[in-house]
Amino acid sequence: MTVSNVINGRTDKVSAATAERIREIMDRTGYVPNGPATALATKRSNIVALVHAASGERPQPSPHDSIFLDEVERGMTKAGRYLMIRSADDVAVTAKELRSWRVDGAIILGAFTSEADEVQSKLGLPLVFVDNYSTSSRISRVGLDDFHGGLIAGRELISTGHRRLALVAPGVDRPGVIHQRFLGFMAAVSEAGLDREAVTLLDSAPFFDAALALGQELAASPQRPTGIFATADIIAIGLLKGLVESGVAVPEQASIIGFDDLPEARYVSPALSTVRQDIPAKAKAAVAALLALIETQERGAEVRLSVEMARRGSVAPPPKA
Amino acid sequence: MTVSNVINGRTDKVSAATAERIREIMDRTGYVPNGPATALATKRSNIVALVHAASGERPQPSPHDSIFLDEVERGMTKAGRYLMIRSADDVAVTAKELRSWRVDGAIILGAFTSEADEVQSKLGLPLVFVDNYSTSSRISRVGLDDFHGGLIAGRELISTGHRRLALVAPGVDRPGVIHQRFLGFMAAVSEAGLDREAVTLLDSAPFFDAALALGQELAASPQRPTGIFATADIIAIGLLKGLVESGVAVPEQASIIGFDDLPEARYVSPALSTVRQDIPAKAKAAVAALLALIETQERGAEVRLSVEMARRGSVAPPPKA
Repeated sequence: MTVSNVINGRTDKVSAATAERIREIMDRTGYVPNGPATALATKRSNIVALVHAASGERPQPSPHDSIFLDEVERGMTKAGRYLMIRSADDVAVTAKELRSWRVDGAIILGAFTSEADEVQSKLGLPLVFVDNYSTSSRISRVGLDDFHGGLIAGRELISTGHRRLALVAPGVDRPGVIHQRFLGFMAAVSEAGLDREAVTLLDSAPFFDAALALGQELAASPQRPTGIFATADIIAIGLLKGLVESGVAVPEQASIIGFDDLPEARYVSPALSTVRQDIPAKAKAAVAALLALIETQERGAEVRLSVEMARRGSVAPPPKA
Repeated sequence: MTVSNVINGRTDKVSAATAERIREIMDRTGYVPNGPATALATKRSNIVALVHAASGERPQPSPHDSIFLDEVERGMTKAGRYLMIRSADDVAVTAKELRSWRVDGAIILGAFTSEADEVQSKLGLPLVFVDNYSTSSRISRVGLDDFHGGLIAGRELISTGHRRLALVAPGVDRPGVIHQRFLGFMAAVSEAGLDREAVTLLDSAPFFDAALALGQELAASPQRPTGIFATADIIAIGLLKGLVESGVAVPEQASIIGFDDLPEARYVSPALSTVRQDIPAKAKAAVAALLALIETQERGAEVRLSVEMARRGSVAPPPKA
């Protein structure tokens, strides 16, 4: 049992000296555990999966997803687990495929709220949904206070003097993180006594080039909003570049706030003010939640991380009319 | 056999109609193949691994590695394989761990040249080394023409008029991609009849903040080089930001060329001139090489992709002395 604990990376149950001795013997004899045989015997594969919803047409991986994945991999490796990854147009189909490998559990990133229940009931596996707003008591969730993020972005623009506002997002209607950010932003508008008409809603795919094109369009429009909130940094960065290249100075003529605080927020000029989330912390919480779920099978836990304004150079008072 | 081919994703050996019918039956009956049992019976797990060398101290994942990984995952999924990923301080140790899962093969990204032989002989598995300059006939390699990349970067700066040059890299001495880019750059210096002393070698870790600090330092130095080649975009982006923030105009007072053509090269102002590599094509080549190797076991193949200058706004003639 002790040896098996060491082999399977459960060293918390074994003294450090003993674990070290066992590892030495394994090393010397060239012992390699037989994963498939162990999985059949114990019904545990020690494999966990990360499934992330991703359009096949995406021009490049989302930096947010890459940081999340990187941290999940480190966390699972540290816990002695193997990580399988799979991007999916249809999360339900992919999740089923993963059953074939008898994964012990999975983290599902970016599925729509409506898919969560279906995936959970089809699989009956330990699953942790990240950035998902399912209200089912059977779903374990890790996410952010997205509403608060939208709220502080709105407050930041309004308190700086902006009255012609825009919210740029890949659609705000479907229940989920973007919808929550939208609701928070509108709450800031409402608490300031502004009319809903003060806000222009603009659609943009969450890709640099789509947002760049929109920024160029905005630059040419006569009744341009002066205070812009983009629900993702990658959109904000494209808008910023599109505006600046078209001769609209940021922040002098237009202010922009993003969401995420990607490393890229600091690469651009001016550096991007944004709603900061701690992506590695979110990944660590998802890893911890899944490992706990595998042990206890008690679903329904919810972790919601806080967000905060990261103030940089892309916000200033609006130009005098 | 036909059913097994469909289950295992080898649909190239089965007519499309038959494959579709078998999938329908599997769907209707809720059939899920038992991966571990199949692996024991066939000695094939259908799992492949991507191992990437990565320092535990990295502040965030390398965008290059994220794009590569994303494309490998898509390719392996399309081929009906499962992908395990593992970052590793020590590639040899991690590769051994993966044997436990009876992976059918692995792609090794970023291992040092000297490690390749050791890993290959210890594992005896189908392995494809990416960006590796081992000359062993037992190693299968996919990489770039890094020498040519350094050469065209050097020519670009010299032909624009620069005579005070710098090469910024995370060390140029160890055999590998960086060393090749350095050799190519020095060949351009030599073919132009310039003295080696025209080139200042500067060290920078491949992280934005390290390069930012170096850019700030450079801005303050009296005999500043005017033409800078960074062996990675992430370094070039940090340098650019550090110089510009410290009041050195790019490209008017300093020119910068990167290497990679990451999406981020277009986010910065001015947009970065850089040596373009096609990372998704490199990933596709690695996937194809590994799948071929798993079938034939014939090692020693080599694929080397070309690179080219992507000209943007960060290069101009040097200021008049």
